[in-house]
Amino acid sequence: MSATIAAEPLRRFVQEVFAAQGLPDKDAAVIAEVLLWANLRGIDSHGVVRVPQYVRHVHAGEMNPRPAMLARSDAPGTVLIDADRAAGPVAMSAAADAAIGKARAAGIGLALVRSTTHTAALGYYTSRAAREGLAAIAMTGGVPQMAYHGARGPAVSTSPFSIAVPGGARGPVVFDMATSVVGLGKLLQTGKAGQAIPAGWATDADGNPTTDPARATVPLPIAGPKGSGLSLMIELLTGIMASNPVLAHALETSDFTHRQNGLVIAIDVARFGSVDAFRREAVRLAKALKALRPSDPGVEIRIPGERGDRVFEQRSRDGIPLPPPVLKELSALAAQLGLRFPS
Amino acid sequence: MSATIAAEPLRRFVQEVFAAQGLPDKDAAVIAEVLLWANLRGIDSHGVVRVPQYVRHVHAGEMNPRPAMLARSDAPGTVLIDADRAAGPVAMSAAADAAIGKARAAGIGLALVRSTTHTAALGYYTSRAAREGLAAIAMTGGVPQMAYHGARGPAVSTSPFSIAVPGGARGPVVFDMATSVVGLGKLLQTGKAGQAIPAGWATDADGNPTTDPARATVPLPIAGPKGSGLSLMIELLTGIMASNPVLAHALETSDFTHRQNGLVIAIDVARFGSVDAFRREAVRLAKALKALRPSDPGVEIRIPGERGDRVFEQRSRDGIPLPPPVLKELSALAAQLGLRFPS
Repeated sequence: MSATIAAEPLRRFVQEVFAAQGLPDKDAAVIAEVLLWANLRGIDSHGVVRVPQYVRHVHAGEMNPRPAMLARSDAPGTVLIDADRAAGPVAMSAAADAAIGKARAAGIGLALVRSTTHTAALGYYTSRAAREGLAAIAMTGGVPQMAYHGARGPAVSTSPFSIAVPGGARGPVVFDMATSVVGLGKLLQTGKAGQAIPAGWATDADGNPTTDPARATVPLPIAGPKGSGLSLMIELLTGIMASNPVLAHALETSDFTHRQNGLVIAIDVARFGSVDAFRREAVRLAKALKALRPSDPGVEIRIPGERGDRVFEQRSRDGIPLPPPVLKELSALAAQLGLRFPS
Repeated sequence: MSATIAAEPLRRFVQEVFAAQGLPDKDAAVIAEVLLWANLRGIDSHGVVRVPQYVRHVHAGEMNPRPAMLARSDAPGTVLIDADRAAGPVAMSAAADAAIGKARAAGIGLALVRSTTHTAALGYYTSRAAREGLAAIAMTGGVPQMAYHGARGPAVSTSPFSIAVPGGARGPVVFDMATSVVGLGKLLQTGKAGQAIPAGWATDADGNPTTDPARATVPLPIAGPKGSGLSLMIELLTGIMASNPVLAHALETSDFTHRQNGLVIAIDVARFGSVDAFRREAVRLAKALKALRPSDPGVEIRIPGERGDRVFEQRSRDGIPLPPPVLKELSALAAQLGLRFPS
């Protein structure tokens, strides 16, 4: 049984789930907002499908429902947010706002997040800045999942990386990529569905290339050394810069306890020229690219974020489709917590 | 006939070439320094092989030998460098220094470069910051060369992207990638050598995949929409943010006149923790990755910049090997300018 649930009741449900985990209402609301944003834009791998995982992070003591988050700034352009294992969306939303504030004052702002959990869809935080007329870059490092070029087994994170800038009437141009060929979520999803894994996506735990859905657990980096090199640099700029190294510890001890570090950089576009002119030029460039001859007839040339904008309109109107396993898991969670699951 | 030339006389020769083009001695020295850095580290595609091309840029009026470069800053963390078509190495070195200065004052600094030419190896500028204990990010946008995912023909630049951070005794960890599967230089080089182009590297001018060295002129982006999306974002952050859009104009008018825009972001690592601790953790992580089981027995697992560090040692000692076509072209240029080519 699948179902389509309207966004607002689903958002309210997610908020209730996290309030029931002991999070302050406003933090529970932030998680709900960030996960629903992903679903509304069609990024279902980073939407409400994550709710049970986040609840497990609370139970395992990996996510702190009542963190003493501390922001320290001793420079006009930088902030260190010691997140005390706060939920990723809570810490990264605070980072986006801090980076935006610093950028308004200094032209560019960096908020470095130390010790958080799964940060959900990074495009949320960069678009948040872009909607206010800023450009933004965000990245996250975490425990080993992906292969490092030339090595066997999980070695680096699938570290996502996002850039967003002000766009036209429909909203920001938002780019959001994992450094792996395919996200771990999609890999496991394809595996669960019993489908063969396309060649080049993954290896087994021992580093052997495989298309066997039961054994493909380690995603491969995009473009070999480029993807794994970028992921390594992200650990250096996040975990190591924040004095909370994740990879070295995990590789040395095989302790893969979930934790992440991240950062958001915001740039005040207006320091360099008019934001309206920027928006016009972004629209002009999108139009020029979309007017090129398609490589396959009838296939649309798309700008980063364009598909998401369209799905957003449709799902805001028609609701969010939940496939049977997700529906089942969320309904069970509702029953367990004594909450009403929306229909 | 090939030859191996000692670095210092080759550097001096390159400087003389650009002084002969009317550049101030100090600017000619900067170009020589940046190109030699690439050769010394084994990045020959961005070394002295570019000298004839840069000379052509001067003759074509694309590179201004006597630019009125203007740095304007109205924020603690940002600088706009209007480069007046200065040589890329001159403008980007100024940008690296400006970003470093801003980062020392504000924690993070951004120098945006408007209107320059080929920026050479971006790793030079990011390592320059990393050697001083800062982290750095650099990127460059230029005219259409690479395919945009889903479209035929050159549409976006092969926009390079570099990150460097402080490393161990051997120097920075330096990551430098093009957004294309293979750089245009390597593609043309392979084509000139008459070798077949590997599948997945490129299309012909009309967008058809090809392995024919005579027809493969348009590099494909890494990981499809990821590579071309990143390249598009780089144009937005450089050309469009600097009010000097390159791609839209070129696509609309088919005017592919050479020009580039770029940026350097520097981050003062010391604002977040000890730089010595950062270096130790970078070395520790490198060690942990290199200790993993290799995917192919006997093949070394490498950290970004590691190969370059080794080539640097060897070539600083033994000289820089120049293949016959490069040697021939540079000797001809020397004769033409009445300069002595080092032997």
